[in-house]
Amino acid sequence: MAMLQLEETPTAMIDRVASLLESFVGERPLTLAEIARRSHVPRSSAHRILQRLVELGWVQRKQFKYTLGVRMFELGAQFPRRHNVHRAAVPVMADLHRRSGLTVHLSMLVGAEIMHLDRVGIWPTAGGQWSAGARQPVATTAAGRAMLATLPPDQWAELDFEDAPTCYSIRSRNQLARDLDRVRDRGGVAVDSQGTALGVTVVAAPIPTADADADEHFALSLCGPTQTLGLEAAIVEVRKAATTTWRAAAGVPPLRPRPVAATGHGSRANMPHAHSGR
Amino acid sequence: MAMLQLEETPTAMIDRVASLLESFVGERPLTLAEIARRSHVPRSSAHRILQRLVELGWVQRKQFKYTLGVRMFELGAQFPRRHNVHRAAVPVMADLHRRSGLTVHLSMLVGAEIMHLDRVGIWPTAGGQWSAGARQPVATTAAGRAMLATLPPDQWAELDFEDAPTCYSIRSRNQLARDLDRVRDRGGVAVDSQGTALGVTVVAAPIPTADADADEHFALSLCGPTQTLGLEAAIVEVRKAATTTWRAAAGVPPLRPRPVAATGHGSRANMPHAHSGR
Repeated sequence: MAMLQLEETPTAMIDRVASLLESFVGERPLTLAEIARRSHVPRSSAHRILQRLVELGWVQRKQFKYTLGVRMFELGAQFPRRHNVHRAAVPVMADLHRRSGLTVHLSMLVGAEIMHLDRVGIWPTAGGQWSAGARQPVATTAAGRAMLATLPPDQWAELDFEDAPTCYSIRSRNQLARDLDRVRDRGGVAVDSQGTALGVTVVAAPIPTADADADEHFALSLCGPTQTLGLEAAIVEVRKAATTTWRAAAGVPPLRPRPVAATGHGSRANMPHAHSGR
Repeated sequence: MAMLQLEETPTAMIDRVASLLESFVGERPLTLAEIARRSHVPRSSAHRILQRLVELGWVQRKQFKYTLGVRMFELGAQFPRRHNVHRAAVPVMADLHRRSGLTVHLSMLVGAEIMHLDRVGIWPTAGGQWSAGARQPVATTAAGRAMLATLPPDQWAELDFEDAPTCYSIRSRNQLARDLDRVRDRGGVAVDSQGTALGVTVVAAPIPTADADADEHFALSLCGPTQTLGLEAAIVEVRKAATTTWRAAAGVPPLRPRPVAATGHGSRANMPHAHSGR
């Protein structure tokens, strides 16, 4: 019996630590009782594990409440940085944001969801779903559909159309298929107008992957108020940014800029409208 | 004996999981042998734990190498967001960056180091030490000294002057004391000219804390090329930004803007020089 317990302990213990840490979803500090309830770890055991995690800096304790510690942030922050694509995207995103005034996201495909790896821009100010580290469903987001369109359906995770956030959301496999046709017609760029949140339009382009076997998929997107976002210019810009990112990530030298007329794509005049009227 | 092991197991196991995860410092994927060596966990045990962590999404495996998984990033990304100060700082940082062209950091005090919670701007492009989630020593950074100056020395962590990164770095307690006097003369703003990295000047202001007992300390900083950064304007701007952040975090209504002359502080003319000449 004692042997059996000894054998079982490692995996069970890892799972307990993981469950405890994962109970900190959301930004509110939690009491021991709340953590025990969320993680399904017995209170006394949860208390002992938390104590150690506090000592290690993984969890922080303030009076009688716990939150995630600085160590967690420190380690997690390395995740985006280890991707070539992220390194390549950072200056492209900054440039795109500065010229357009729109919020730029770099997102990756994680099962049936997208996860935002990085974000430049502060609009929309509300809504945790737009933060770096947050997830959104693949089918109801432009970045998600831009990535889906590059993959054969047998490589898709199982999609869920249950929780359509607005009345403009895609809510069936058929609707999705029709939208992906439009994505392909636009040369790979997906547009979501108020399907993720009312008043928000997002335009996204997949970042081509350097090797065909890559199992990681990324997209860049531009997000702005539906009322003022200049769709055509945003489509051109986001596609160009995705290509620039791919070239930098893959080590392909950038295209030599060709001379353009003063009102050409490179100029500010043609950029998608800044939401703040800047 | 078996009882003893059972008693010992939880803490030892937590420490092993933590050591394994913490061995992923740096951005390079690691082999099992490297992880075992770095974490001092026996290879067979490391293998078993990693397998479970891969299943849980905390670690990712590609062929024979391991990296941190998406779960780690997702959880860690919540850390800055749970601070009022971060929420308050986000729009202030974006505004400051847009107007100055300089890189803006929000950092917090963690023992004898500062940790960057957020960053807006892409310069300097090289050097992991400037990323969100990265740490720098308190004494050799402007943000660190801006925070130290607000604290009685008996609340400082033990400082280490061993690793002075440049010949301009502060390298003794006496030098530090003299610098903190200058910080106080500037109304709390710290200036570091090439003491962190050659060619880089950083100007930092502490964010006042709402309650005196707060054990968390934050600073905002502006970072730019030593050759072009306009010091006087940067000092004014970063102090103003820190106050604005504090007011927003503490729920104090913003000051009514007073009419200023066209060349006053609020205007672009007086802003610290954008490094890229934009």
